[in-house]
Amino acid sequence: MTSLFVRACERGEVERTPVWFMRQAGRYQPEYRRVRERLRLLDICERPDVCTEVTLLPVRQLQVDAAILFSDITVPLRAVGIGLDIVENVGPVVAEPLRSASDLERLRTLVPEEDEPYVAAAVRQIVAELGDVPLIGFAGGPFTLASYLVEGGPSRSYRRLKGLMWQDPQLFRALMERLADMTLRHLVAQAEAGAAALQIFDSWIGCLSPADYRRHVLPVMQGLFRRLEALHVPRIYFGVETAGLLEAMAESGADVIGVDWRVEIRTAADRIGPELAIQGNLDPALLLAPEDEIAQAAKAIVGAMGGRRGHIFNLGHGVLPETPPDALRRLVEIVRQESLHA
Amino acid sequence: MTSLFVRACERGEVERTPVWFMRQAGRYQPEYRRVRERLRLLDICERPDVCTEVTLLPVRQLQVDAAILFSDITVPLRAVGIGLDIVENVGPVVAEPLRSASDLERLRTLVPEEDEPYVAAAVRQIVAELGDVPLIGFAGGPFTLASYLVEGGPSRSYRRLKGLMWQDPQLFRALMERLADMTLRHLVAQAEAGAAALQIFDSWIGCLSPADYRRHVLPVMQGLFRRLEALHVPRIYFGVETAGLLEAMAESGADVIGVDWRVEIRTAADRIGPELAIQGNLDPALLLAPEDEIAQAAKAIVGAMGGRRGHIFNLGHGVLPETPPDALRRLVEIVRQESLHA
Repeated sequence: MTSLFVRACERGEVERTPVWFMRQAGRYQPEYRRVRERLRLLDICERPDVCTEVTLLPVRQLQVDAAILFSDITVPLRAVGIGLDIVENVGPVVAEPLRSASDLERLRTLVPEEDEPYVAAAVRQIVAELGDVPLIGFAGGPFTLASYLVEGGPSRSYRRLKGLMWQDPQLFRALMERLADMTLRHLVAQAEAGAAALQIFDSWIGCLSPADYRRHVLPVMQGLFRRLEALHVPRIYFGVETAGLLEAMAESGADVIGVDWRVEIRTAADRIGPELAIQGNLDPALLLAPEDEIAQAAKAIVGAMGGRRGHIFNLGHGVLPETPPDALRRLVEIVRQESLHA
Repeated sequence: MTSLFVRACERGEVERTPVWFMRQAGRYQPEYRRVRERLRLLDICERPDVCTEVTLLPVRQLQVDAAILFSDITVPLRAVGIGLDIVENVGPVVAEPLRSASDLERLRTLVPEEDEPYVAAAVRQIVAELGDVPLIGFAGGPFTLASYLVEGGPSRSYRRLKGLMWQDPQLFRALMERLADMTLRHLVAQAEAGAAALQIFDSWIGCLSPADYRRHVLPVMQGLFRRLEALHVPRIYFGVETAGLLEAMAESGADVIGVDWRVEIRTAADRIGPELAIQGNLDPALLLAPEDEIAQAAKAIVGAMGGRRGHIFNLGHGVLPETPPDALRRLVEIVRQESLHA
């Protein structure tokens, strides 16, 4: 029987709204923090045993309706030899940023079984232990990967990345296509190993105007989602600050659009249209609020989506490190109860 | 005769689209950088002569249709004795953040003529020298001011500010009302000294969900804009990442809504409705692009707004320090030419 989560992605009939959380395995968990005392984030991704443990923990603790592979968007970049580090409280930092046509050669073709066998190994192990709970595969979006490669790290204005995009659109496109190919191979490996759905984290696309998104990013995403179609698993496409991009993202070929909290969810659902499912959209900071505030906001989201097929409850971005685990547990219960009766 | 800029704010007939730029006086200008070698940013705001010089320079250089008072949103906070500094490459840093009811007492009532006489003095001097070009008064929005006061500086998640908002909505509202009163007095002083329009920079409201914005911020803004109405000058309300908030912002009572580049301008204009003017929305990073890219994007904005009354051309946020002054000069020409024939 198809899982509740996958049925919601496919806009099928569901008995209630499925729920999971981006970064449901993370620093808010004491158990995760203990693992991190001995291992770096990327080490966890490269060790199937630990990756499995970390991926499964929140599923057991929170009773969410889906697991997501514990990973980082930079995993396939490291796997082809790009020198980078995840710096605490900063983010991914690339030792030698890519800025010229010759730099492009450093992005060689990803061969998952050779370059990152630990990814499929982790997926197989997790799927075997999960039982009926579906696993979501994990990858970064080409534009977001490009932002780290070109800027050299996190950025507020993305001026180098946008500079490349406008000054040398052909080189920018070549970079995007290479990253799309990498993302494709990375996700195919996960689906073939048993992932029941795939999410592309394209967090920073919201820094683009709709015109630039349509011209420089959308065609690449359309090609990527088209090639992923053959896997016959739902494809989720997520970014933040996308309230002005939703109509364009809806043309990407994804099955589910993930939205942040900066747009009302019913408005967002109307903008993407009835043919697509939607995932979101509670403000992650709200989990630091009193219980009744969280409950009220969760009920508003479930209520707004009542009668609309294809809603997966989630936060609008990853769980914040300061989040009390109990707040997430209670949120799962609220969504279950409210959506049963909606 | 009413200026072109004010007529556009009032959705009157115009012969072409007026244009000015947020942060048109700033680090991209060699002349400004020379002033900053001897004076700190806040020192400039406190010296009417220098403030006048800095405010007028881009008007002469770029031939824009409006000047904006060179200022910083923290000016009135400093004027009532809040200890803060503008730290280079960081932003405003507050020595002792406000987090309790007793902290609120530190925000005493602003008396512009005593606490910041240099503000009205600068406005008078600038207006005298500007001739027919209108001057826009400058203030921060209460929510954005509160973000610095509560967080202690810039933030990505605004978790402390939001925490206060959800945990103690009454204290949050009291803080917002005090800041709204400060903003009101700060703007009244500027209008009485001759400012022809007023802009409220509420840059960070886009971190809120529409529901939180409506509940915790909109009522305060409605009160503020209502009280500003008696001044009979156009009131502009600007924030970034507001594509999901536009319908709510349109209910604030402002005459003009300023939007960033993350939403298509005609879409944004439709969302705020025909009763309001709109200002924006070229991506500031685009000024680092080749000339034909800038021209194409500017023409697209002017073209999209053709036949819609009430458009003021601007960037979607402040001019970036790396911007070549010539790019801004050419952009003004393009907007003039294109909108004459639109």
